Amino acid sequence: MFNVIQKKGKARRGKLVLPHGEIETPFFMPIATKGAVKTLSSKDMENLGAQILLSNTYHLLLRPGLEGIKKLDGLHKFMNWKKPILTDSGGYQVFSLARLNKTTDDGVEFQSHIDGSRMKLTPELSMEMQTAIGSDIVMQFDDVAAGNSTYERYKEAMERSLRWAKRCKEYMNRSSGTMSPGHRTVAAVPSDTAPPLLFGIVQGGTHEDLRQRSAGGLVEIGFDGYAIGGLSVGEPKEDCYRFTEFTTKFLPEDKPRYFMGGGMPEEIARYVFMGVDMFDCVLPTRNARHGSLFVWQEDPSSIDFENFEQKFYSLKHITNEAFQFDTGKLDAFCECETCQTTTPAYLRHLFMTQELLAYRLATIHNLTFYLTLMRSLRNVIR
Amino acid sequence: MFNVIQKKGKARRGKLVLPHGEIETPFFMPIATKGAVKTLSSKDMENLGAQILLSNTYHLLLRPGLEGIKKLDGLHKFMNWKKPILTDSGGYQVFSLARLNKTTDDGVEFQSHIDGSRMKLTPELSMEMQTAIGSDIVMQFDDVAAGNSTYERYKEAMERSLRWAKRCKEYMNRSSGTMSPGHRTVAAVPSDTAPPLLFGIVQGGTHEDLRQRSAGGLVEIGFDGYAIGGLSVGEPKEDCYRFTEFTTKFLPEDKPRYFMGGGMPEEIARYVFMGVDMFDCVLPTRNARHGSLFVWQEDPSSIDFENFEQKFYSLKHITNEAFQFDTGKLDAFCECETCQTTTPAYLRHLFMTQELLAYRLATIHNLTFYLTLMRSLRNVIR
Repeated sequence: MFNVIQKKGKARRGKLVLPHGEIETPFFMPIATKGAVKTLSSKDMENLGAQILLSNTYHLLLRPGLEGIKKLDGLHKFMNWKKPILTDSGGYQVFSLARLNKTTDDGVEFQSHIDGSRMKLTPELSMEMQTAIGSDIVMQFDDVAAGNSTYERYKEAMERSLRWAKRCKEYMNRSSGTMSPGHRTVAAVPSDTAPPLLFGIVQGGTHEDLRQRSAGGLVEIGFDGYAIGGLSVGEPKEDCYRFTEFTTKFLPEDKPRYFMGGGMPEEIARYVFMGVDMFDCVLPTRNARHGSLFVWQEDPSSIDFENFEQKFYSLKHITNEAFQFDTGKLDAFCECETCQTTTPAYLRHLFMTQELLAYRLATIHNLTFYLTLMRSLRNVIR
Repeated sequence: MFNVIQKKGKARRGKLVLPHGEIETPFFMPIATKGAVKTLSSKDMENLGAQILLSNTYHLLLRPGLEGIKKLDGLHKFMNWKKPILTDSGGYQVFSLARLNKTTDDGVEFQSHIDGSRMKLTPELSMEMQTAIGSDIVMQFDDVAAGNSTYERYKEAMERSLRWAKRCKEYMNRSSGTMSPGHRTVAAVPSDTAPPLLFGIVQGGTHEDLRQRSAGGLVEIGFDGYAIGGLSVGEPKEDCYRFTEFTTKFLPEDKPRYFMGGGMPEEIARYVFMGVDMFDCVLPTRNARHGSLFVWQEDPSSIDFENFEQKFYSLKHITNEAFQFDTGKLDAFCECETCQTTTPAYLRHLFMTQELLAYRLATIHNLTFYLTLMRSLRNVIR
């Protein structure tokens, strides 16, 4: 279900076949946290050319809930999105958003950040929820260690994550192919009755031995793809590069590799040239809502992305007074709706007067930037 | 510039020729308070088929300001909207939003509700600002009496408004045809170099003698159209109907009539059958943002709008639990993007999780409802 078509150095261009369609790698996944990319509709995401969305199991577990999403026949139908969806496992959100009560080998007890109700997330419940969502790529449930944990805590979390990875695989093997019929109604391709892919997540903080043991353990269990987790959480950028490169050495060539939760455009370019295929990040959408816009410094089709020293974009802080009467182009190399219809002066005015339209227009632009970045990177490999 | 093409009882169907294009009457003006209809872009408004937008002089006077909007070559170019714009005079907003310091015959002194800075709005400044905006229909500056004023206060405000109406007319006569060249760059029709229309506003609260005197005085000065002001401000609905009907008796047949700031769909239908041609109201957009949706009870093309007892729509409060698993149609008779792509269950979820997309989708639907209402009313007259 994953074919590497072409390589350039370590960078790979390929095709990933999923229940709801084929997608070209490397790719970026816009984040539809609660079943919608903030400010945008599924139709907007289709128009932007997004190949796949990422949605958060934790948020959907709270609302509409496991029984709710089952009753609604899965997320595709609910949000009217026909292409693939990847779901995270809920582990990271339980760790970062909920009040965490207790982690045992069984699972994680926590309180909802919305109404404080007590819940328990186990590897099996995460799999059941992701299956109910109708996810194309299911992420294993993992134990997340905080950014500055001790070696012992990283080791414990990594080893528990390995045990949980096995339980996830066993659950999915048992239930494989049981995607509810409802998911099929909006599917774009006949393969939508195929079971979802299951990915393992490499943990181990910034410790080579733990990373190596984690990757090795996961490969031994055998997954459809491998994620590099626990990076891009505040460590120095050089560490992040180093441990990503280090981790990929232990991942099989013929499976997709997913860097979780990063990053800035130059980081994504760098990871692609380390052989990473999949990305997700809140930066384009979150920055957009804060008026920070990614702007090309030259035509993206002619950028030398392998020259890592080159600065190929800048960040425009649109609320800056300099844009008050700027009636030129927001981004000379962008074809998005925002750049075609809106001047910096008007977009600034919308931000200054807190019009909700501002957040939408900025999000359209920043997501277009990231999707164009990925297209350009695929072209460079080609 | 205004032609009544057809009449049915007192209701009129006509054509209004404005600098930025011709529009069919009767019509509804979505409100672009600060240069944008909340949550929507100018392109969205074009797609919805809006013929004209209303924007608020007071808000634009604060940001981007008189010099700002001049530098930006007017509102059409700023917000990239090619069709007509009507601007109010700022009088009502100064009264309702700003801290009002002093009203004299010269004008109104007030403090900005944003930064508290002291400003003064006069009939002449209102005209200068509306001209700088590049408005197609300029409203006279008026003295607004509070809803429960004494007869004396209503009389004073009405008479001062008459004196100000004359000053507005004199200002516009002097500056007529001086629309800045910048406004022409986005104009849809060659007539955009024509001067804007100027409308007078009938005041006088719920006092027949004051209303009659106000209308008579305005007609004597002579305006391109006449607005019915100071109603729909909390008085009983029957009073509102009665004084609208009473006021229209004193307005010339061959000029457009504009009911300001109202109302619910059945009210608009009623006013159309009293011979009113123009409407604006925050209800569709504000209700939308509160999750309250106007829904047709039958096909709008077959509704008997002259039967004023008939209930032809209902309000759906989308956050209601009843919609939690409602995967049917939001409105069986609506063709808007929201109804075509979104179920009640999903829209409810977006409201419950406070996704900004919710407000946009609801606004698209409610504005489509109001614009369809006006089209249906025009068809009934036809």
